[in-house]
Amino acid sequence: MTPEAPRAPRAPYADPAAGAAVKATDRAHVFHSWSAQGLIDPLAVAGAEGAYFWDYDGNRYLDFTSGLVFTNIGYQHPAVVAAIQEQAGRLTTFAPAFAIEARSEAARMIAERTPGDLDKIFFTNGGAEAVENAVRMARVHTGRTKVLSAYRSYHGATSTAINLTGDPRRWASDTGSAGVVRFWAPFLYRSPFYASTEAEECARALRHLEDTLAFEGPSTVAAVVLETVPGTAGIMPPPPGYLAGVREICDRYGIVFVLDEVMAGFGRTGRWFAADHDEVVPDLMTFAKGVNSGYVPLGGVAINAEIAATFETRPYPGGLTYSGHPLACAAAVATLRVMEEERTVEAAAHLGEHVLGPGLRELAERHPSVGEVRGLGAFWALELVRDRETREPLVPYNATGEANAPMAAFGAACRKNGLWPFINMNRTHVVPACNITEEEAKEGLAALDTALFAADEHTVEAA
Amino acid sequence: MTPEAPRAPRAPYADPAAGAAVKATDRAHVFHSWSAQGLIDPLAVAGAEGAYFWDYDGNRYLDFTSGLVFTNIGYQHPAVVAAIQEQAGRLTTFAPAFAIEARSEAARMIAERTPGDLDKIFFTNGGAEAVENAVRMARVHTGRTKVLSAYRSYHGATSTAINLTGDPRRWASDTGSAGVVRFWAPFLYRSPFYASTEAEECARALRHLEDTLAFEGPSTVAAVVLETVPGTAGIMPPPPGYLAGVREICDRYGIVFVLDEVMAGFGRTGRWFAADHDEVVPDLMTFAKGVNSGYVPLGGVAINAEIAATFETRPYPGGLTYSGHPLACAAAVATLRVMEEERTVEAAAHLGEHVLGPGLRELAERHPSVGEVRGLGAFWALELVRDRETREPLVPYNATGEANAPMAAFGAACRKNGLWPFINMNRTHVVPACNITEEEAKEGLAALDTALFAADEHTVEAA
Repeated sequence: MTPEAPRAPRAPYADPAAGAAVKATDRAHVFHSWSAQGLIDPLAVAGAEGAYFWDYDGNRYLDFTSGLVFTNIGYQHPAVVAAIQEQAGRLTTFAPAFAIEARSEAARMIAERTPGDLDKIFFTNGGAEAVENAVRMARVHTGRTKVLSAYRSYHGATSTAINLTGDPRRWASDTGSAGVVRFWAPFLYRSPFYASTEAEECARALRHLEDTLAFEGPSTVAAVVLETVPGTAGIMPPPPGYLAGVREICDRYGIVFVLDEVMAGFGRTGRWFAADHDEVVPDLMTFAKGVNSGYVPLGGVAINAEIAATFETRPYPGGLTYSGHPLACAAAVATLRVMEEERTVEAAAHLGEHVLGPGLRELAERHPSVGEVRGLGAFWALELVRDRETREPLVPYNATGEANAPMAAFGAACRKNGLWPFINMNRTHVVPACNITEEEAKEGLAALDTALFAADEHTVEAA
Repeated sequence: MTPEAPRAPRAPYADPAAGAAVKATDRAHVFHSWSAQGLIDPLAVAGAEGAYFWDYDGNRYLDFTSGLVFTNIGYQHPAVVAAIQEQAGRLTTFAPAFAIEARSEAARMIAERTPGDLDKIFFTNGGAEAVENAVRMARVHTGRTKVLSAYRSYHGATSTAINLTGDPRRWASDTGSAGVVRFWAPFLYRSPFYASTEAEECARALRHLEDTLAFEGPSTVAAVVLETVPGTAGIMPPPPGYLAGVREICDRYGIVFVLDEVMAGFGRTGRWFAADHDEVVPDLMTFAKGVNSGYVPLGGVAINAEIAATFETRPYPGGLTYSGHPLACAAAVATLRVMEEERTVEAAAHLGEHVLGPGLRELAERHPSVGEVRGLGAFWALELVRDRETREPLVPYNATGEANAPMAAFGAACRKNGLWPFINMNRTHVVPACNITEEEAKEGLAALDTALFAADEHTVEAA
């Protein structure tokens, strides 16, 4: 299958009674993430294929979310489904202390793609545990405790990972005691440094990090942890030179540089890893999601030679029951093969350069609610604003209820148009499968176009 | 298939070249849990079925570890393999915010089996994340921070979970700042309270907890977290009345009582949950492992009505990408059906009462190195000692290298006899699949018998 190959038509499907039963059982027994359980109304989903999913009532949606930005190859890719079925029949599970073919092969294929000397792979079940373990490795390796991370970030919801996170989901779990110091990463559109160019933003952001380190005491800092391209926080590709600058600062002070590629990795940005755009090699790289498109829970840490050497004769003080789960690893092997054969990474680059980038910028020209379009590959954000001049967000930071009504209206309009959007605060992210066709992408852009009129109504231009 | 049905014969298998390749790739790229990477020699495993696994060199092992105590129904159960294959073909993955049939059904079936009003299920990828989320729920629900947990415990390796853990794996990650206070739970064989009967141990352990709470300030404590039967720490069934006593103390002070059933749950002790033996209902119960025999990574928290009510209108501040992963949930549904149909829980009870219990006690009579036999169901520990009088452990606490030689020799003798043992410190745990046949159990007991002579050599009797 090439990225442009026609997909099987999706049969219309409707079984409202079955959907109602699934929903009723969900409401009785399933406790959902990040939600007030009594205020949500989860859609019952019956099936999915490629870039689409459908409910039990005959509605089909084009998925511009890739789940939570993980189905980089789309839903139900037949080669990966077959590989899971094959591995399930052979050896679905085995304890982590053993050498298992799927585990070895997944590690080898991942190491082959990670930059530089990131050649040892520690497997976890997902991104949060990957971040937990990267921080532990950095702390043991350096003998230091403190970790620096950025506001406008998301790193997961276990204790260390959520304390590293910059968004409001941290607040309820913020112990103020996990050795985490947060700083400001570059973001020209809302520059914390009053910069007016990318180069200025880059220089000032590096100066800010240097100053923060100077006052924290560089010798107390184990690691700087950054999403290569911050994801849920707003898809902000760093200005050229920023990551190289951070790399240089870390080297100067013996600080471990951790790049979190849980969302940006495995093709999402049009390269295997977002760090490849800048040719920067971190000391540790966390991954999850795209590694096997989330078909089976899997995450991990890619470890460089120096840190691996620390744990050659000294036991690594971390682990988990399902580290290198054979079924998850087999799904990764199959996913990476598919991505290689179908040139999925190149497809994402093409999509960004020739379809989504131009298409979204064209929408921005016609819709006053679009303050900025930014991104690359299959990884884009539209910053929705009340006022393009002042850049006042369409809704306040962390708005709920009535205050969030403009974004809720935009979301409802997308869904009415058959598009399932990714919405966070005042932004919509365009993060479809990396291998959607140009036709599918254009279908989504057209739905966005219609829905943006709902956002436009709340701009100063409309008032 | 009934627990006593004959199993398919396992074909002899040998392909040393393939095994060497798997091993070489593992050594080049896989970073293993809890290990000095240069000092381990992971066995390459080619396959597994039921209670057995085999390597690439023609050796087959009876698995007395159930992986890491998770394959409660044994390896490659055909009904669960088929269910995984079926779900993979239908809908292998989907985001957590939706109602999905396998997710709903798994939650319903788990809630049906958990005691009391533990009827809402929050899914995670494994036990550590389950504990992280149980603690978060308790903290938000009570508005308090501090959590009490026991020495001689294991709760996982993410930041909060490892800080709750009582064993030496905590030390390297112990921040001393996660709001955790550790206390001593009952363990008559090495009583922290100088007790000489179960009743005395129980009363003194409850008094110790009361006193610790009094000095910590009960109003500062969000939760008491206990493994119902501590697992890796030594399989110590609590004395009758202890769990009910802790329940009463928690009620008195408005403290959330969390039982960690990650290892003890889902049939391991001969009941669905270990708490069922005492008819105690915690406020939150964590699970993983046996819920789907580890065929796909899955864990979770079962939540009572009062705590669920807290999050009806207030958002729960936690979540994860793969919460309620469809493939993992489908494996749980199939596993629970198999356990029901094959009466696996009853089989574990029978195994404990009629085969393992008597068999292990019989070994203890003949081997001076066995200080105590304790356990129930398919969940047993042999405490190996140098001296039955003084109860001096066969090796010191947390011994490595030469100091650990007696246990290493015991382990090697087991493996030479075709038995793969679970070894932790001075103990071997007998934790096979819950559905092994009497014949398989006896094969394992015979191998243990032979191997224990290697341990006997290091006792004072032998000196």
